[in-house]
Amino acid sequence: MIIFEYKKMKQQTEKELIWIYESHNDVRYGLKGKLIKQEKTPFQEIKIIESKRYGKGLLLDNAWMTTEKQEKQYHECLVHPAICGAKDLNKVLIIGGGDGGTARECLKYKQIKNLDMVEIDIRVIELSKQYLPSLGDKAWNDSRLNIKIKNAIEWIKQAKNNYYDVIIVDGADPKGPAKQLFDINFLKDCKRVLKSGGIFATQSESPESFREIHIEIIQTLRKVFDYADPLYGSVPIYPSGWWSWTFASDEKPRYLSPKKERVLEISAQCEIWSTRWQQGAFNTIPAFIERVLKS
Amino acid sequence: MIIFEYKKMKQQTEKELIWIYESHNDVRYGLKGKLIKQEKTPFQEIKIIESKRYGKGLLLDNAWMTTEKQEKQYHECLVHPAICGAKDLNKVLIIGGGDGGTARECLKYKQIKNLDMVEIDIRVIELSKQYLPSLGDKAWNDSRLNIKIKNAIEWIKQAKNNYYDVIIVDGADPKGPAKQLFDINFLKDCKRVLKSGGIFATQSESPESFREIHIEIIQTLRKVFDYADPLYGSVPIYPSGWWSWTFASDEKPRYLSPKKERVLEISAQCEIWSTRWQQGAFNTIPAFIERVLKS
Repeated sequence: MIIFEYKKMKQQTEKELIWIYESHNDVRYGLKGKLIKQEKTPFQEIKIIESKRYGKGLLLDNAWMTTEKQEKQYHECLVHPAICGAKDLNKVLIIGGGDGGTARECLKYKQIKNLDMVEIDIRVIELSKQYLPSLGDKAWNDSRLNIKIKNAIEWIKQAKNNYYDVIIVDGADPKGPAKQLFDINFLKDCKRVLKSGGIFATQSESPESFREIHIEIIQTLRKVFDYADPLYGSVPIYPSGWWSWTFASDEKPRYLSPKKERVLEISAQCEIWSTRWQQGAFNTIPAFIERVLKS
Repeated sequence: MIIFEYKKMKQQTEKELIWIYESHNDVRYGLKGKLIKQEKTPFQEIKIIESKRYGKGLLLDNAWMTTEKQEKQYHECLVHPAICGAKDLNKVLIIGGGDGGTARECLKYKQIKNLDMVEIDIRVIELSKQYLPSLGDKAWNDSRLNIKIKNAIEWIKQAKNNYYDVIIVDGADPKGPAKQLFDINFLKDCKRVLKSGGIFATQSESPESFREIHIEIIQTLRKVFDYADPLYGSVPIYPSGWWSWTFASDEKPRYLSPKKERVLEISAQCEIWSTRWQQGAFNTIPAFIERVLKS
């Protein structure tokens, strides 16, 4: 009887499951699951889903942003090369990052005294806290975290010179509210706000599915900073799964030399990132991108 | 009027297009296109599709094998680390590889005098020649290529000792006809057939979607050979897109040291592979796999 009830329940659940897709240039990536929340904010449409494979997930304007069981592949790669390489580590700025994963990775470093997060859409934060609590985890209650619900493009114009040791841009694809996060004027503002010895980091799209945008981000950052280099990895839920993050600094490429004491603090907690992985990931630039950047 | 006709034609074509998926563990990867050929052979079901994004593509038992415009990401990574590192380069063996892409990459090296290909299913070769001619390209008419339509598991038992300089296993996932290509007895036969100074190479699945199998392949190869190391890359059409190839040799890890004259012969023709890329790709072992292999 219990077995029968269980079977019935299972069938019921199975029936309710649908395929939830992101479609991009005639390619689709789908997870089997349920839509559990859908909301239109002044900035975008937010969907929360419960997938069989990767737990709960977040979509903005029908593009996959993150899932509970496949988020470290993104957040570790964005955060650790920047944080481990910066000269000092007092004040860190996150632009975007409303799901909390980037803040969580940053706050693992005790040295960070102050972490500002400028997110445009309060509902991304609120729904992430409610449905994806493992993303932000303890960060949401960490007294070092200061959340500012602002348009970062406007906000950074007013921000103090030489203030942050690390700036991390954790935004969506360059359309909708995230579009201007890849604009040269915004990046120049970031440089002004960054302290000497600081590191700038941004997700920089796929060398495959967003090839032109990817190249443009690197080229623009090389105009603004003395050094900028892409690092390549894998985020299966994003278009093509082949993803990149780009790091920039002045005087020398500081992101290439992680500081040992910070590495020791963080390594055991990482799923993907290690100094070996990072060293490799800065070198796995595909030949077709390297040729364009050299030309 | 022409515009109207064009629109009509476009609508017609658009209507005929369907999503063609590979589903794996509640995750789906789909390309928009048309099914143009479907055939059941004694070994597997072959499908040829015409996709909007990546040109024509091949599926075996509903798993994506290759597409015209996304095949170098697989074939370059499998072939060049092996061919560039081997001591000599007279005789090369490909097991599987019926689409022709691996043979094409091998035959770019003038030094290779003889290339044997042992493929179980003649229809994979015939349909690839007919529908995906750019994969094999000039290889199909190269007098150095000898095709043997055989079960490689049986065939290799009879093969001569110390005969090949490089052995490349280009098989499907370990189920169906490809299952035994990951078995220790088959791998021991490969070692016996490999000359001293030779390199063995195999695709070794995804560290994400086939994590256990991936680890097992590396561990088994380390039992059979003195050295075996995985290399990581991206093949968007495969489950998770995050893919690996594993290389093995005796005495020293020869695959880590590509020979300069061979690199010069090949580099300009590669889309992904370069010595820098290769060096990086051997290091981007994710922390969770490195921990398991060290334990």
